Amino acid sequence: VVTRVAAARPEEIRRHNLGLLLREIHQHGALTRADLTAALGLNRSTIGALVSDLVQLGLVEEYIPPGRDRAGRPSHVVAPRADGPYVLAVEVGVERLITAAIGLGGTVYARQEHPIEGHARRPDAIVAQIVAEGAAIAAQLPPGARAVAIGVSVPGTVRQRDGFVEHAPNLDWRAIPFAAMLQAKFADPVDVLVGNDADLGAVAEHQRGAAIGYDHMIYLNGSVGVGAGIIAEGRQLHGVGGYAGEIGHMTINPDGPPCHCGSTGCVETYIGEHALLRAAGITDQHGAEAIAALFRAAEAGEPNASAAVHTVAVWLGRTLANIVNLFNPQAVVVGGSLAEVVRLERLTVESELDRRAMAASRSGVKVLLPGLKQDSALIGAAELAFQTLLEAPDVPLPAVAN
Amino acid sequence: VVTRVAAARPEEIRRHNLGLLLREIHQHGALTRADLTAALGLNRSTIGALVSDLVQLGLVEEYIPPGRDRAGRPSHVVAPRADGPYVLAVEVGVERLITAAIGLGGTVYARQEHPIEGHARRPDAIVAQIVAEGAAIAAQLPPGARAVAIGVSVPGTVRQRDGFVEHAPNLDWRAIPFAAMLQAKFADPVDVLVGNDADLGAVAEHQRGAAIGYDHMIYLNGSVGVGAGIIAEGRQLHGVGGYAGEIGHMTINPDGPPCHCGSTGCVETYIGEHALLRAAGITDQHGAEAIAALFRAAEAGEPNASAAVHTVAVWLGRTLANIVNLFNPQAVVVGGSLAEVVRLERLTVESELDRRAMAASRSGVKVLLPGLKQDSALIGAAELAFQTLLEAPDVPLPAVAN
Repeated sequence: VVTRVAAARPEEIRRHNLGLLLREIHQHGALTRADLTAALGLNRSTIGALVSDLVQLGLVEEYIPPGRDRAGRPSHVVAPRADGPYVLAVEVGVERLITAAIGLGGTVYARQEHPIEGHARRPDAIVAQIVAEGAAIAAQLPPGARAVAIGVSVPGTVRQRDGFVEHAPNLDWRAIPFAAMLQAKFADPVDVLVGNDADLGAVAEHQRGAAIGYDHMIYLNGSVGVGAGIIAEGRQLHGVGGYAGEIGHMTINPDGPPCHCGSTGCVETYIGEHALLRAAGITDQHGAEAIAALFRAAEAGEPNASAAVHTVAVWLGRTLANIVNLFNPQAVVVGGSLAEVVRLERLTVESELDRRAMAASRSGVKVLLPGLKQDSALIGAAELAFQTLLEAPDVPLPAVAN
Repeated sequence: VVTRVAAARPEEIRRHNLGLLLREIHQHGALTRADLTAALGLNRSTIGALVSDLVQLGLVEEYIPPGRDRAGRPSHVVAPRADGPYVLAVEVGVERLITAAIGLGGTVYARQEHPIEGHARRPDAIVAQIVAEGAAIAAQLPPGARAVAIGVSVPGTVRQRDGFVEHAPNLDWRAIPFAAMLQAKFADPVDVLVGNDADLGAVAEHQRGAAIGYDHMIYLNGSVGVGAGIIAEGRQLHGVGGYAGEIGHMTINPDGPPCHCGSTGCVETYIGEHALLRAAGITDQHGAEAIAALFRAAEAGEPNASAAVHTVAVWLGRTLANIVNLFNPQAVVVGGSLAEVVRLERLTVESELDRRAMAASRSGVKVLLPGLKQDSALIGAAELAFQTLLEAPDVPLPAVAN
């Protein structure tokens, strides 16, 4: 709001501009000063001063691009500093815990993946494991590298304000103050942010994945649970508490199967992984391996597996039609095991969409596969963790260390 | 964005602040200078200068509140000027055309309602009637009163950019450049804005109706057609083309009745007025009178009518549960004939919502009746029409006259 800015002090404007500049470099990687001048609409000397500040803060480095010795002054290149701060990104999945060190510009410096089951899924066990993984990752990185925040993706409803997990049904978590529990493990008040997996996947696909440039987009994440992250006019739609996008629990047939949520005929009961296995007549196996085997069988033409994928594709098309009618997006990115359904049965999905979506909205929407493969939520957790630094690059953050 | 503002010229900042000030007065009506100083965070002398500008422009008037003769200087009251500019607000309904002259502050100066049917529903006939009604209204108002824009509500999908009506099924309009057609009737380039009825209803209920203060809200409008207007973080969700919120065509049972849109089991086939009449066994009547008679019969306990309202209430609860799961709003305002369903069967609606909405989102949402009764879309059309003036109060607008 202009009235605020009219009254803003110069150091606030400088901080805001520092954040904008760092955000450009974070999003696009190495950029010339000329690129930055054009992107921010500030003059060259202001850009020069801001870049110097970011260099001083140890966040970026500046160099003359190599191999340029023709006449004229080449524009300096500004890039994230390779040994600059990183964030610890965590994806708590139903079957696996992924941790990664991710730097400015989205560079993944280290990544670890461990299966979790039974007791290892309990919140306190997950917290302990994140701390241990964080220390193991730090030991792999050059001395001086410094984690400045932790971002965690959780498959459940998360209160945006404080990272309190209301309900993560497939982890059997209910009312878990997860951000606070993780924070309590550190002596310094480390920045810990927790988000819903589909919300974070949407942010990552919008920033760095298949939906770059689409400011109206949905990321539909389907594995055991089904959820959506929504970007409208370039901003995430959270709802008042942070619970928006629970598309897995949209009723799509009130007479349908019972859902663990207490309702019946939820989308999840038709396109979640349990539904897919059930449709193929598989009742004695579950988990990622069973799903992968089912997709291999469908691709090889095994009739039960093919029919099951086809059935799920029809219901996925119906779900997407509802999304298109409600949000009028430019793109829907379909991730998780549903990405494989789109890959194998795209025509089925698209024709159901043709049939059920309003023409005006249908004609402008693309169904896309994730650009970040299986890592949309993990990369999104890193984006979440970087927020504080990007808002105020000149405010020192305590390092994650215990 | 601060970078833009840092470079903004003083007259741009002044114009922006004039707009903010006029918006405050438009939204809240008469306010003291002290109120305005607090609301805008500007100092008293700046507020004084801005108010003087608005007085000069003929938009507001200033007076010392009467009956205040105790010690101390009373704060001047700033109010919309009664003979200031007004907008022509139009609601094109399926059975009636409503036109009104609405001033700053939302004051309705004149309002006319005419039935439309058959040929009178054709776009060119509606355009001609709007022009005639506008002239008739102008003749009723004091000389000097001046319409500065026209805002039109249409029950269909409207391209936001240019007021092109893609499809208004219940008017049998398809691909109608409605804003351009109406504009062409005037010699001067009059400001004409066209919006979807549910979108405009949402704006009006949020600004002046039942959902004031709820920045996450949905207005569900149900009569012959069913649509939703969505407000998230205080901003309207339009989607990329302006078609978002087509909740009437959300599939809620793929095996359900055929819908005129080409799909099956759309929400509209369960809670639209045709479905309500059909559920009561009424096949030979339709329109507002038949619906009113049905509600009277249900209230009097007539079994068929009561059962029909009950059935629609169940499906309305299911629809609301989907809305709550997707948007996590603070309030859903239910308008049109569905408002009467809520009034008669609130417990049914709320218990279906309890059963099907996720607890975290369910616990924070209220189901409300419209604060503006049947006029939500009409008032919303006025809000749309006032946008240009509120953005730049010092730029003269051509008067609507032909």
